[in-house]
Amino acid sequence: MRSLLFLYLLWAIITPIHTQAQSQKDSIFIRKAYDAALSSGKAYEDLRSLCKDIGARITGSAEAAMAVEWSEAKMNSYGFDKVYKQEITVPHWERGTKEAGWVRKENGELMKVHLLALGGSIGTNGLMEGELITFPSLTALQEASQKEVVGKIVFINQPMDEKEIITFRAYGGCYPIRGNGAVEGARLGAKAVIIRSLGLPIDPHPHTGSMHYNDSIQKIPAAAVSTQDAELIQRMVDAKESLEFVLEMDCQSYPDVSSHNVIAEITGTENPDEIITFGGHLDSWDTGEGAHDDGAGVIHCLEALRILKELDYKPKHTLRLVFFMNEENGNFGGKSYAKIVKEKGENQVAAVESDRGGFAPRGFTCDGNSDQLAMLASFEPYFTNYDLHVFDPGYGGVDITPLKNYYEGIPLFGFVPDSQRYFDFHHAPSDVFENVNKRELELGCAAMASFLYLLDKNL
Amino acid sequence: MRSLLFLYLLWAIITPIHTQAQSQKDSIFIRKAYDAALSSGKAYEDLRSLCKDIGARITGSAEAAMAVEWSEAKMNSYGFDKVYKQEITVPHWERGTKEAGWVRKENGELMKVHLLALGGSIGTNGLMEGELITFPSLTALQEASQKEVVGKIVFINQPMDEKEIITFRAYGGCYPIRGNGAVEGARLGAKAVIIRSLGLPIDPHPHTGSMHYNDSIQKIPAAAVSTQDAELIQRMVDAKESLEFVLEMDCQSYPDVSSHNVIAEITGTENPDEIITFGGHLDSWDTGEGAHDDGAGVIHCLEALRILKELDYKPKHTLRLVFFMNEENGNFGGKSYAKIVKEKGENQVAAVESDRGGFAPRGFTCDGNSDQLAMLASFEPYFTNYDLHVFDPGYGGVDITPLKNYYEGIPLFGFVPDSQRYFDFHHAPSDVFENVNKRELELGCAAMASFLYLLDKNL
Repeated sequence: MRSLLFLYLLWAIITPIHTQAQSQKDSIFIRKAYDAALSSGKAYEDLRSLCKDIGARITGSAEAAMAVEWSEAKMNSYGFDKVYKQEITVPHWERGTKEAGWVRKENGELMKVHLLALGGSIGTNGLMEGELITFPSLTALQEASQKEVVGKIVFINQPMDEKEIITFRAYGGCYPIRGNGAVEGARLGAKAVIIRSLGLPIDPHPHTGSMHYNDSIQKIPAAAVSTQDAELIQRMVDAKESLEFVLEMDCQSYPDVSSHNVIAEITGTENPDEIITFGGHLDSWDTGEGAHDDGAGVIHCLEALRILKELDYKPKHTLRLVFFMNEENGNFGGKSYAKIVKEKGENQVAAVESDRGGFAPRGFTCDGNSDQLAMLASFEPYFTNYDLHVFDPGYGGVDITPLKNYYEGIPLFGFVPDSQRYFDFHHAPSDVFENVNKRELELGCAAMASFLYLLDKNL
Repeated sequence: MRSLLFLYLLWAIITPIHTQAQSQKDSIFIRKAYDAALSSGKAYEDLRSLCKDIGARITGSAEAAMAVEWSEAKMNSYGFDKVYKQEITVPHWERGTKEAGWVRKENGELMKVHLLALGGSIGTNGLMEGELITFPSLTALQEASQKEVVGKIVFINQPMDEKEIITFRAYGGCYPIRGNGAVEGARLGAKAVIIRSLGLPIDPHPHTGSMHYNDSIQKIPAAAVSTQDAELIQRMVDAKESLEFVLEMDCQSYPDVSSHNVIAEITGTENPDEIITFGGHLDSWDTGEGAHDDGAGVIHCLEALRILKELDYKPKHTLRLVFFMNEENGNFGGKSYAKIVKEKGENQVAAVESDRGGFAPRGFTCDGNSDQLAMLASFEPYFTNYDLHVFDPGYGGVDITPLKNYYEGIPLFGFVPDSQRYFDFHHAPSDVFENVNKRELELGCAAMASFLYLLDKNL
């Protein structure tokens, strides 16, 4: 804090008077944005409705279609300058109706596990069973011999590293297990792959998420068991129990379907052709309610635009809110959006994403060059009173990253909430509205509105 | 962050080599403290045990006595150099067995409210009923006439200001309502005072807390209804309904009793007579489990000392952990501790408190002079990687503040976790173990251990 005071004094001495007045005006605007979010905000009720009136909304589902309808109606109700849908083609995978797994001990004793098929997995085609072989990590599986693994069901019990302070780093360390586990298992002849859920608490909730196959390698079923079950299985393994795994899943992929990104705009007054894209993803996994992932993110952005309109802010650039479809299993919303806007010859000048949950704000990161990072750093003093302190280089987000393929040098910004509880809920049945705190959500909306305001004024 | 980098570079240039080496050693130690807390910590299990094996532990209760026993046994199990109890005299108030309230509409319709007597309140001596008169604030009550209020039951429906970013400021704004409401009501002849709970969410949980009487003014019963009930009553008032309130409570105060602060120490190697006192309060209100208030605080401090011992840290000064009794309704633990240690001629050189919940750490505040504030600010770079950013002037805590009466110039430090969810649970039935997040708690313990380490080295 002392350092900020020092820089502030330095800045106060060398800054011309009119800039100070401008800065005071900006501070007053930001205070109004926070007041609007905290005392008369719509975010909490909007998130409740998205979670309860729609619910889980995986790409290709009836719920995803209804979420598109819900979004368009909601955006229309707020009276933005433009509201429209952007048609895209997306994958379609369904969990089906059968999904169960058991561990069978040598004495015939059965333990039913809490399990979710990984998104994109094939089914088992009836009951599948086999000897269970356990590995402590993906690397350990990769180093195993075909002889050890062939014909067995592989269990990878690699926990997320709880010593990482920012939980996304721990997630990053385990992400390849979920993505590549089936390929690595099948390469050695495994019948199926079971992974320990990518979640931090020891609890009964399994966490799903995307996985992929390699066309040249046999496709095998892949599922995640809860961390609690993983610990129980490990105890049996450590006790030298000989275990079998029994699995049934009838999930499957279907042909691609048509779906939509949903878009709203406030037209720029000075540079209407220069577009600031910001948003989150409307789709979720098919478990829980997608409350934090990414209900909170789309609501942050929707509420931010609503607040800017309520405060009668006339942006210089066009502010475009995008609810992206299909971030979870393919990112065809983000990829298609970037391609379409480039083909239309649009001028995209910056993009912002919220997809890290609805927790208390910590700041923003920037995937950009040194000037863009300097601009981000210059925003920090405006947020000190609001408990934001992260204004660092970092990732923008999955949905907006494809813009970089078409717009060289475009700065991408990611909203950074506190990460400690995110992997309690991520892709799990527990990602429900009740686990989002009203104030934390609202503070995220206010931070997003304030950030868009500063970005628009400083670009 | 840029500003920190700048200061770091400046510091790196002007700092002698051996100080840099020292700083690196300190950083390594702090990393070890975090690893110990996050990967093999005892905090979560210790808090579970305090909440479930003891539970709510109001001063003077059997649970408070068992909490003293629990604490001494726990401290002994960790093998600190000294463990002992400090006998003190404390007030004794009991809620009793009868506690219920209703709103009665003109047509006889009844609405039962969720209600808790305020701590220290007298009972109603059977069923009490009276016309309900509602005020939007304590000030409005103070400005009312005796004629309006006499013989009625006063309802003060002043909400906490949701626009305050740091929720403790909103609490501060409403604190006098709970403390003085009964005195202000009785001054105008009210029969009883009902307040809106000091809580931020609109939910069914009433929040208790301390209140006081004035010996020259009639004592009247005082209770808090849930924010949800307060909103419902307000709607009736706004609809010009004429309302009565019906109340029964048999809470009462008893003669003072003997109780204990519980203390553990690691003896200083260089200055054993210079004592750094740190702790939280062992007592809680008699509802919920005192999980955040202040189970988390005592566990932060217990775990911090355990970690310092596990890492074989030999402090220069004596590190004294104190579990204070009776913070909630009298602060006789804190007041007696300061008096006793002064009378013993002890040299108290600094004090640290954790009593703001078990949420993700934000930093530390200092109630001290400019040199002490500068020392605190010098700790900030050590914590940047751990997401702490508040190193500001501010309050120490209720339990340690009495030390200022005896030790002029003693610096007091308060641990600052994120405040957004604190007033969801504070003094309410919902303040239970399940509402404390494991990682957030552990990060608080690590921050406390690291802070004590730096404080001991820099004093």
